Amino acid sequence: MDSLTFVLFGATGDLAKRKIFPSLFHLFLDGKMPKSFTIIGLGRREWSDQTFQMHVEKSLQTFSKRSENGDASKVREFLSAFRYSSLDVTDHDGYKQVLGMVQKREEELGIPENRLFYLSVAPEFFDVISQNIKESGLGSIKGWKRLVIEKPFGHDLKSAQELIAKLSNAFEVDEIYLIDHYLGKPMVQNMESIKFANPMFQSLWNNKHIANVQITASETVGVEERAGYYDQVGAIRDMVQNHMLQLVMMTAMQQPTRIGANEIRNKKIKVMEFLRPLQKDEVVRDVVRGQYEKGYMNGELVPAYTDEPSIEGTSMNDTFIAARLWIDDPFWSGVPFYIRTGKRMKEKSTRIVIEFKNPIKDLYQEKNEETAPNLLIIEIGPNEGISIQFNSKNPLNHGKNEPVTGRFLANKKSMPEAYELLLSDALHGDSTFFVQWKEVELSWKWAEPILEAFEENNLPLHLYQSGSMGPEASEQLLQEDGFKWW
Amino acid sequence: MDSLTFVLFGATGDLAKRKIFPSLFHLFLDGKMPKSFTIIGLGRREWSDQTFQMHVEKSLQTFSKRSENGDASKVREFLSAFRYSSLDVTDHDGYKQVLGMVQKREEELGIPENRLFYLSVAPEFFDVISQNIKESGLGSIKGWKRLVIEKPFGHDLKSAQELIAKLSNAFEVDEIYLIDHYLGKPMVQNMESIKFANPMFQSLWNNKHIANVQITASETVGVEERAGYYDQVGAIRDMVQNHMLQLVMMTAMQQPTRIGANEIRNKKIKVMEFLRPLQKDEVVRDVVRGQYEKGYMNGELVPAYTDEPSIEGTSMNDTFIAARLWIDDPFWSGVPFYIRTGKRMKEKSTRIVIEFKNPIKDLYQEKNEETAPNLLIIEIGPNEGISIQFNSKNPLNHGKNEPVTGRFLANKKSMPEAYELLLSDALHGDSTFFVQWKEVELSWKWAEPILEAFEENNLPLHLYQSGSMGPEASEQLLQEDGFKWW
Repeated sequence: MDSLTFVLFGATGDLAKRKIFPSLFHLFLDGKMPKSFTIIGLGRREWSDQTFQMHVEKSLQTFSKRSENGDASKVREFLSAFRYSSLDVTDHDGYKQVLGMVQKREEELGIPENRLFYLSVAPEFFDVISQNIKESGLGSIKGWKRLVIEKPFGHDLKSAQELIAKLSNAFEVDEIYLIDHYLGKPMVQNMESIKFANPMFQSLWNNKHIANVQITASETVGVEERAGYYDQVGAIRDMVQNHMLQLVMMTAMQQPTRIGANEIRNKKIKVMEFLRPLQKDEVVRDVVRGQYEKGYMNGELVPAYTDEPSIEGTSMNDTFIAARLWIDDPFWSGVPFYIRTGKRMKEKSTRIVIEFKNPIKDLYQEKNEETAPNLLIIEIGPNEGISIQFNSKNPLNHGKNEPVTGRFLANKKSMPEAYELLLSDALHGDSTFFVQWKEVELSWKWAEPILEAFEENNLPLHLYQSGSMGPEASEQLLQEDGFKWW
Repeated sequence: MDSLTFVLFGATGDLAKRKIFPSLFHLFLDGKMPKSFTIIGLGRREWSDQTFQMHVEKSLQTFSKRSENGDASKVREFLSAFRYSSLDVTDHDGYKQVLGMVQKREEELGIPENRLFYLSVAPEFFDVISQNIKESGLGSIKGWKRLVIEKPFGHDLKSAQELIAKLSNAFEVDEIYLIDHYLGKPMVQNMESIKFANPMFQSLWNNKHIANVQITASETVGVEERAGYYDQVGAIRDMVQNHMLQLVMMTAMQQPTRIGANEIRNKKIKVMEFLRPLQKDEVVRDVVRGQYEKGYMNGELVPAYTDEPSIEGTSMNDTFIAARLWIDDPFWSGVPFYIRTGKRMKEKSTRIVIEFKNPIKDLYQEKNEETAPNLLIIEIGPNEGISIQFNSKNPLNHGKNEPVTGRFLANKKSMPEAYELLLSDALHGDSTFFVQWKEVELSWKWAEPILEAFEENNLPLHLYQSGSMGPEASEQLLQEDGFKWW
């Protein structure tokens, strides 16, 4: 693994503290960091190296699951790789100073000019930072350079395309690592193996055998501190255009001829290319827009969305989306993909349910028996597991068929977090589980008619009780096709 | 459910005490016995009804899992249905007396002449009893009559055919219920549902997807009290010709157009008809014969078969058989079925393992990864469960594929025993899980060349250590085809 310098913009921020430092520390403990590396923190505050190191140490104590059993000397060794420089990201000259610092450390350690720039900052700074990286010479190097940023990647198709254009001035497209942290979740990454490393499932993974696909990402929380931001984006921009479509891609992608980053990524693009576009006036048929009403969560009354602090009482923002998608390729033709996501729902759960066709109903008709459909359930969170529902005779009930479940549950405690997996991949230059610009574009293109229909208020806003599984219209969406949410 | 009289020959014997009385009692507790019924016990001993009832009560106390929580009045009510008559089964006149007793009870209870004759006696009495049932008028009735017997059904093809001919004098073929208690095991009966009530498995259940089938029935016990009998029959007659072939039939039978006793039974016959016959001189290629040597079981030294009491030191009897079978129909062509069974083996386990083909090996070659084959494991005993082995990324090991298992385990404690299920079926006249004469004939026909080869000593007798999984030759049988026992 290449030695490198990790340049972290926004080093004093929340994501750094909660996720990035603990993740890097875990990689370090597991021997997954290069032998020699520097982590250079950049932020507006005037901190010394020592203050920064103390800040990192505190972050580990608070947010690392593994700091307690940790060897103190290991922590010290890890912290010794951290340096800090204050930087106003719009200040052209400041970057020269950072360059000097980076070069000095590269010389001290005798390591090549491999630099990873992680932008843990608000998206409006993506452009100016990348431009300054280029102009300061920070990016003009003999080794490799990588830029890591996290969503939002634009707020519509046009702004996303502009962002691409701007970043492309300073970085090649394949040097840019776009994080969708859903792609870092172990069970989402596992979709590749479930489908491609198991002939048993692979043989069944098409419209001959699958009746429908149901993807749920339900949250119990409301808008909380992000109210102002959330009211501008809604569930459609916050969850659907990115995370939910990524789950659709991971579920629907076809088997490549070999397993590699490009092959997987190409197959994901293919899904988006065959995703049936919505017409603005058809959105009402295939999309359900919801907003939470007051209701009881765990016995406690919680306020309606429009009663949340800093939300206008007239807000029409969507806190829930359900939608029916079609992938018009030979493998998926005729198989509806249902997605739903929302806040203040009954349970916190992210899962993919594959419902298989049930052509054997008639076989048991004379016996007056119902057979439940076969299901493959991929639990992404909060539990991580894979279950299969199948029919089994119950000898205690006259040998009648009853659905039972065989379940493999991953050991939750030892599972690495999404950021750990993604940072490790970025450090290794493995782009398999990063978002491609092409995906971002196609996703916005697909979402555009929905955004417009919402803006023009072309479809109803269904209110749903907090603590429910969303509005009744979401159930009807499946009932129309003879299905139900599992 | 029809009222009936249950006539039990061998009522003072071991099977009656251990299995039949407790099973009938459980059916009674679960409301699965008819409203009115009599159980007439017949035996050589001179017992009164009361002695017999006390004997039954003791059997329940000793062998019923449910007698302790039982309601005493329920036990009394159950016992009140028992009558006893002593009978020398070869004494023609004695049957008249039994007839009188049966008729008297039928009148008392006002129930029709439905009579089930259960022959819990040595097979040499099957013929004389059935003949006397006919001649005494016990079998000449307005209602229905059924004859229930248990293996052995002959000791070779000729003797089996003779037995059929004799019993057919007194009973129609479809009035004869042949018990193979393996067909009463809940998970063996469940094979029907696993295959036919689950499109997911049904789609995969053929030679396009299955690489091989492995059926194991291993015992830890030695010959024990049955030494004299066992030395005459060996594993081939004791286990293979009946139980193992039944498991082959249940695994390989194809889906009928509807689920019913005749449909299932016809599909089982089809399997036997397509089972490739062995030539006597080919037996050595496809069959492994073994006999246990001394060895350690749970740390304790146990004697070799030839050192067992009442076994000759020169005995060539088989205590272990492994074999490769082929079913030459379009569904199974090219898929080997491996069976093995033996005494004094490492573990007690009856299970069926379906190994699926692994065509995706190349996909992961460039990643230097091995993928294990997908397995479907049906545990028949001592645990009852269904497991699927599939490959899953291990995030703790660089995301490499590792085989994991999703398992459904039936609640062992509450599972009914084989006899309970079979008696209930016989009382209902459901013949699905009883052996057909045609199966008996075809099984003996298949086994005949093996019996002859053993007799002529045409193939080696492989000794294996007690506490092992059988002789090395059993492993080689699969290795020749590129497989291994799971």
